[in-house]
This record gives sequence, structure tokens and C-alpha cells, in this order.
Amino acid sequence: MTTSPVTHRAAAPHILARCRDLVRPALAGAVQRLHPWHAEMAAFSLGWGGVDGSPVPGSQGKGVRQALALLSAEAAGAPAEDAVVGAVAVELIHVFSLLHDDIMDGDETRRQRATVWKVYGTGPAILAGDALFALAVQTLADSPGAHGGAAVRHLAGTLTDLVRGQAEDLLFETRPWTGPEAVRPHEYRWMAEHKTGALLGCATGLGGLLAGAPAATVDALAGAGRHLGVAFQAVDDLLGIWGDPERTGKPVHSDLRRLKKTYPVLAALATDDPAARHLAALLGSGNPLDATTARRAADLVEEAGGRTATLAEAHRHLDSARRSLDGVPLAPAALGELLALFPFFVDRAA
Amino acid sequence: MTTSPVTHRAAAPHILARCRDLVRPALAGAVQRLHPWHAEMAAFSLGWGGVDGSPVPGSQGKGVRQALALLSAEAAGAPAEDAVVGAVAVELIHVFSLLHDDIMDGDETRRQRATVWKVYGTGPAILAGDALFALAVQTLADSPGAHGGAAVRHLAGTLTDLVRGQAEDLLFETRPWTGPEAVRPHEYRWMAEHKTGALLGCATGLGGLLAGAPAATVDALAGAGRHLGVAFQAVDDLLGIWGDPERTGKPVHSDLRRLKKTYPVLAALATDDPAARHLAALLGSGNPLDATTARRAADLVEEAGGRTATLAEAHRHLDSARRSLDGVPLAPAALGELLALFPFFVDRAA
Repeated sequence: MTTSPVTHRAAAPHILARCRDLVRPALAGAVQRLHPWHAEMAAFSLGWGGVDGSPVPGSQGKGVRQALALLSAEAAGAPAEDAVVGAVAVELIHVFSLLHDDIMDGDETRRQRATVWKVYGTGPAILAGDALFALAVQTLADSPGAHGGAAVRHLAGTLTDLVRGQAEDLLFETRPWTGPEAVRPHEYRWMAEHKTGALLGCATGLGGLLAGAPAATVDALAGAGRHLGVAFQAVDDLLGIWGDPERTGKPVHSDLRRLKKTYPVLAALATDDPAARHLAALLGSGNPLDATTARRAADLVEEAGGRTATLAEAHRHLDSARRSLDGVPLAPAALGELLALFPFFVDRAA
Repeated sequence: MTTSPVTHRAAAPHILARCRDLVRPALAGAVQRLHPWHAEMAAFSLGWGGVDGSPVPGSQGKGVRQALALLSAEAAGAPAEDAVVGAVAVELIHVFSLLHDDIMDGDETRRQRATVWKVYGTGPAILAGDALFALAVQTLADSPGAHGGAAVRHLAGTLTDLVRGQAEDLLFETRPWTGPEAVRPHEYRWMAEHKTGALLGCATGLGGLLAGAPAATVDALAGAGRHLGVAFQAVDDLLGIWGDPERTGKPVHSDLRRLKKTYPVLAALATDDPAARHLAALLGSGNPLDATTARRAADLVEEAGGRTATLAEAHRHLDSARRSLDGVPLAPAALGELLALFPFFVDRAA
């Protein structure tokens, strides 16, 4: 790696802004193809508009997924523009999955705002998700480039992985905290690689694919994205317990209060530390935890090493993401920019 | 038309059975690619399995959609086998739309059984629908034939039409029965062509497309399927009011009781018959109708000509479906079998 971490950190916001500027017109154009009702829900979810469809400047996300797609294409030697259609498809799928997952998980707020199903109703939010899903497929299928067919296949594979991951996550909730049926950390990792990693791997993979990169390069890029996803999910789990409510928009210890099976808890329970046994007893009641019990549970997770293990898990996958890109020929400047984004996936925990 | 309606009617069950036999192994194979939880929900919805996944022999549907795809391919001069992948994709999308629509419409029973969301929960049913959607795209995208790319584009266009139609149907519920904002019969027809016609047009269009037919033939076949869909929806609306509860599995006058905006009612309200004014007054309360009021409303719809207009609408679109196929070169025997299925789309009203 030729560029220093300091350079990376400083440059990242500029890199993200450049990519957002490149993708925004195409993404806005795609959203405008939707039924107006669905376009409004999509704009709301993307942070572009309020409940009435009015613009809300500056509330959009960072756009890390679209940036991964564009920088991967550049790293594979093509202009970023070649991957814009892939970036659009990935963003549409991201919004689709937020809309449906928020219903499944019963989440009422996201980024300090009400979720789409809370504002528009469950039925309309399901349908808007379906519309975004269809539009993502259509966007890639209609793209005129030589790699459209392979891109659609890549997206279809991503989607089946994504729903498999979400299915396991839902099923985890029905499994016990201890005993032979308990969820093991490696099962959680598989789930995270599918639920969260698949779409990031789709972004990087599609970038390479639309750039016309050879299969080994596409695989390396896709693999890096999947590892980033696992790292991202691990950090998300840390934030779900120890995140600052001001920044996460969720109550402190929220994942513990609602007994969500996340990596820190599963890693803690998988130890033979005495704190793990106390933790299992607290969680085993099956009722949502009150604030005091949730705080006690968080302390026990930490005592049994769950917090440390999760941070290590995040960094291990960040390293794996970097290693995935070793050994395939990539353009150094674009690779530098791509790597500059990697810390974003774990630094949120700071 | 060289074959008589009597021949058609007698042959249809055999034609459907032949097509089901051709599609079943590939459809079962596709379903087996799903997460086991989703495969179970899909089998339940397809009528293949009970709640616990155990086989339920003989409870499957007639399979008109898959037959339309196969016969369209044969009419376009190819072996039916060439369209099996399209038939599978259409069936998967059909099940996807049932799963999601039943949630949106709050329907608790279908074909005398509980709906998937009632049995498995809303979240799992949403996700199973998403999985079927993804699998449909993947099935076509991965198909090795020369026409896979065009087939995926055709499917993507269908999906966007389908969600647009469903969006309008949901929005109809928020509009008044009378006045300038009332839903007009032509708007309802547009909705039905998208919500119901798109998938039947996808079946016939994909059949032609996978057979390698020229664009004019594909368009003619797709157009015929869309008209069949409008005819089907019109008859569905008749059954929703006057259907035999023993056969529909729904209470008598069910669509009127829950104030659903259907073609017979909208056609009745669009007349200046005195019965239309009485009907509008009954419906305008905004509360679900009791059994007596629903019976009175059904009589008023009939008195204002809504029932006759709907039957005429169905037959008009059946005729249009037949006419769509005039003037394009199609193999006579296969065309005869295709036309033999057409009465199925309206005879359910008898």
C-alpha cells in the first residue's frame, strides 16, 4: 500500500462526494421512473425528501455503496462512469432492503426519522420495496453495455444471498441462547456475510464486472466487499449496544433490551467465562429487558469479552478485505481511493 | 378458427395437465434452491404442501400461466421445452405477488386455506415473496439459451407494470365513490391490465421470446395475454360479488362488504341510472356493509347494469385476445390449444 492512512482519512469525504455527484443524476432519473407514490417513498428513504415529497437538503447518506462500485471500476482500469448503472442498482436494492427489513424487524425509526412503513403504512411500504427491487433489475437489464447479462446474474445471485441472510437472522430470534440449538458465532458470521456482505460485495463486484475485468479480479473485488460487510455488521452490533443514542437515534442498549441476537452477545455466551452464565440467565427470561437489566447485561457481555471479540472480528474482516485485493492487478491511484474508504466501515464505533 | 369451441372445452384439461407435467420438475427444482423455510412457504402457496411442509396431493392450481407460456412457444414454432424456464419464472412471480398482495389486502384465506402471512407471520411472508422474486430473476438470468437477456428484460418490464397496477389498486381505496376524484372504469381497466394482465402477457410473451419468435409475434402474444388478464380480472370481480361462497371460499358479496372498488360497482356508478345514486348513498358511509346492505348494494349494481357491463367487458377482452393473434404466423395445432384455454379465463363466472 503506497498511500498512508492519514492521507486516506482526509481524502475520504472528497472521494465520497465525487462519487455521489457522478451517481446522483442517474439515481434520480431511475427513481423518477417509479410510480409517483413509490418515487416519493424512495426519495424519503434516500433522505432526499420529506413526507410530502419536499426536498430536504443535506440529509442524504454518505453513499459508501455507490462509491465502492465506482472506485472498483476505476481500480479495474475503466472510467467510473461505466459502473454508474451498477451503483444505481445497488442503491435501489439497498433502499428496497431497508423498507422491507424495517417492517420485518418492527423498526420505527431510522436516521432519527420515522421509517417508511410507519409513515406510509405496511402495505404501501412492501409495494414500494417491490418497485425498487424491480427497478434495480430493470436498470441493469436495460443497460446497453456489453456486460449487462453478467451484471444481472451477479445482482440476482446477490439478491438470493441477501434474502437467505435475512431469513437466518429472523430464525435466530426463535432459537435459544444456550444449549445445542444456540446460535454459534460462526453461524452469525455466515448470516452477516449474506445479509450485509452480499450487497457490498455486489457493489465492488459489479464495479469490476462493468469495467470488463477478468473473473479473478471481479471475484477479488466482490470478496473484499463481502468482508467489508461483515466488518460493518460487527460494528453495527457494537453500536446497537454501546452506541451514543444521540448519534444512533436508538435508545442505549437497544439491541439488548429487545433481546436481539448479535455478535457481541453470541461471542460472550460462547465463552466459559462466569459472566457468560450470568448473562444467559438474564437473557433467558424471554421478556424485553428493562433499562437496569440491559445495562447489567451490557456489562456482562463486556466482562465475558464479547465487546473485544466483536471489535477484533471487525478488524479481522477489514484486513481480509484488504488482502482480497492483493495479488490482482489494480490501478494504484483508484486502489488507494478504494482503500481510503475501508476505515469508514469500522470507525463509526469510535 | 378451425377447431370448434366444443373441442376446445373438452381438450383443455388435458392440455393443462400436459403443460403441468412439463413444468413441474423444473419448478420443483427451482423451489428447492430456496432457503428451506421459503421453500416450505412456496410449496404451501403452490398447494404442494401443508403448513408443516408435508405433501398435499391434488391441491395444486390448474397452471394456466405456465400453459400459456409453453403453448405460446409451440405456437411460435419451438418445442414447449424451450419455454419451461419462462413458465417457471412466471409461476414464481405469481406466488411472489400472491404472498405480498394478501398482506396488502389483508386477505386471510385463499383457496379455502389460510394465507401465508396468516400462517407464518407478516415478516416471513414478505421475505419469502422477496426470495421468490429473486429466484425468478435468477432462473431467467442463468438460463443458458440465446434469449436469456431479452427474457430478463421482458420480466423486469412486467414486474414494474405489476407494481404500478397494484399501486393504483391500493390508491383507488383512498378515492371517493362519486365526484371528479372518483375512479372511472377506464382507470380500472388500466389498473387491471397492469396488475393482472402484465403477468399473463409475460407468460405468452416469454413463450414467444424464448422460442426465438420475431418481435411482432412476441408483441402479439404478449398483447393477447394482457387482454386475457383484463378479462380474468373482470370475472374475478363478478365472483367477488355474486360468486358461490362454496366455490370462492369467500363470503357472499365479500367485495361489497369491504367496499372494494371493482369494475361492476364502478361501471354501475358511472351510469345515470337512479339505482346508481342509491348505490352511491349506500357505499358513501365509509363503513363496511352488513349482509343486508351488501345484498341491497349487489341488487343496485345489477339494476344499474354493472353486472352486464362487466360480463361484456370480459368478453370484449377475450375477443381482443383472440384478435391479437390474427395476422401473425403461428403453428395451427398449438394455436388451437392456446385458444382452447381462453374460455377458462371467463367461464369461471358461469
